[in-house]
Amino acid sequence: MPERIALIGAGRVGGHLGRRLHQAGWPIVQVYSRNPDKAKSLAAQLGAGFTGDLNAISRDADLYILAVSDDAIGEVAGALPLPPDKLVVHTSGATPSDELHNRFARYGVFYPLQTFSADREPDFSNIPICLFAADTAGYDLLERLARSLGSPYYAVDDRQRFVLHVAAVFVNNFTNYLYQVGEDIAHSEQLSFDLLRPLILETAQKIQSASPAAMQTGPAIRGDAATVERHLAYLADRPEYAELYRMLTKGINAEMG
Amino acid sequence: MPERIALIGAGRVGGHLGRRLHQAGWPIVQVYSRNPDKAKSLAAQLGAGFTGDLNAISRDADLYILAVSDDAIGEVAGALPLPPDKLVVHTSGATPSDELHNRFARYGVFYPLQTFSADREPDFSNIPICLFAADTAGYDLLERLARSLGSPYYAVDDRQRFVLHVAAVFVNNFTNYLYQVGEDIAHSEQLSFDLLRPLILETAQKIQSASPAAMQTGPAIRGDAATVERHLAYLADRPEYAELYRMLTKGINAEMG
Repeated sequence: MPERIALIGAGRVGGHLGRRLHQAGWPIVQVYSRNPDKAKSLAAQLGAGFTGDLNAISRDADLYILAVSDDAIGEVAGALPLPPDKLVVHTSGATPSDELHNRFARYGVFYPLQTFSADREPDFSNIPICLFAADTAGYDLLERLARSLGSPYYAVDDRQRFVLHVAAVFVNNFTNYLYQVGEDIAHSEQLSFDLLRPLILETAQKIQSASPAAMQTGPAIRGDAATVERHLAYLADRPEYAELYRMLTKGINAEMG
Repeated sequence: MPERIALIGAGRVGGHLGRRLHQAGWPIVQVYSRNPDKAKSLAAQLGAGFTGDLNAISRDADLYILAVSDDAIGEVAGALPLPPDKLVVHTSGATPSDELHNRFARYGVFYPLQTFSADREPDFSNIPICLFAADTAGYDLLERLARSLGSPYYAVDDRQRFVLHVAAVFVNNFTNYLYQVGEDIAHSEQLSFDLLRPLILETAQKIQSASPAAMQTGPAIRGDAATVERHLAYLADRPEYAELYRMLTKGINAEMG
């Protein structure tokens, strides 16, 4: 008989993950959200019960998935009215598993390394799942879960997951900020950001099958000092962009040795 | 009768652009490369003549497209044995059109704003072409060219094209460097870059239909100072990454106002 899952949290991650698990045939017995309407709405999609009351969490599930905000993980885990031998996992990249260990002997992490939006359907076959569990049986279950979603999965311990989170900030948040800088610069000359969008996509697509170092182009890697100087002269009245330009150019040059 | 094109340069841009123009039905009368074998090979694909000798450039074409390296544009334009009323354009984002103006009365720019690789077939329907021409008839021809490739096109003057090039460095070269930083950090903990690739693609896909500012996520925009501090502590033994982290976080924070 397949393991019964309780979903604690009905936000973006809980919603997307819950629907995909349901679709893969896992019985979701209950959805909790502190907002009962959100719990009810997601539960209806999953054929599950729902509650807005932590004390009414079902004791009948085999796996409890905490898909709540990072800040709430410790508090919610502490308040779950469950025996300490229940398997409880969170879905956070940034949170150590200790936050669950304080309360449960069987704990783990099921972290989909992707950015989720409310209005974009995620493709789980292309979402790496980082798995950790304190016990072998727990890990086996998480592995079956990931496999049933069609997702690539990796054993990732707390330290590695933390470091991945640092790396993800560079390739996602900081990259997105550079897109914003590009948009700002283009707009300052009455140019549409549409001119830059295809370049952005192509750059991301190119490194799907190659190493970024091998794909670098542009004035810095070419050692084209004259162009770098002309660009910096243009940026002179935006010192924060000029400083960023200098630092990133220095980083690319350092790679050249 | 369609205008006859001579292609000066048989590198990545000349190759991809030449094949697409040929496919769209434009007669390519001649291909020049200082490497006669490259000229011959591309010319064979385009049903064109070829030469490795600038003095043997055909006088019969209506449009001369210079797809040579930025550094060579001025020199090649100066050496073209053509009457000064011929229409000559280059394909460079970084080079002012002056380099042609010095030599030709009818000059312009046909700049595909994309990064071209030898082994990736470009999709011209998704490549913005930046057009400039000194005369109206010249501009009309460039517009017909871009339209026949199925490409979106924009009138972009020298100053705007220069600024676009600055913006492109931010969203392409610098972004690619951040991918490299992410790969380096992941590898330092024995983690595959495959874990980050889907996140990179999703981030680029998300802003295809949205503004990057609206899509920002992560600790900086959330004002999560504790996570920022933990990340910086981890990066302490990589001061150049820590400095970059600090500067980009400051940039994201500044956007929050």
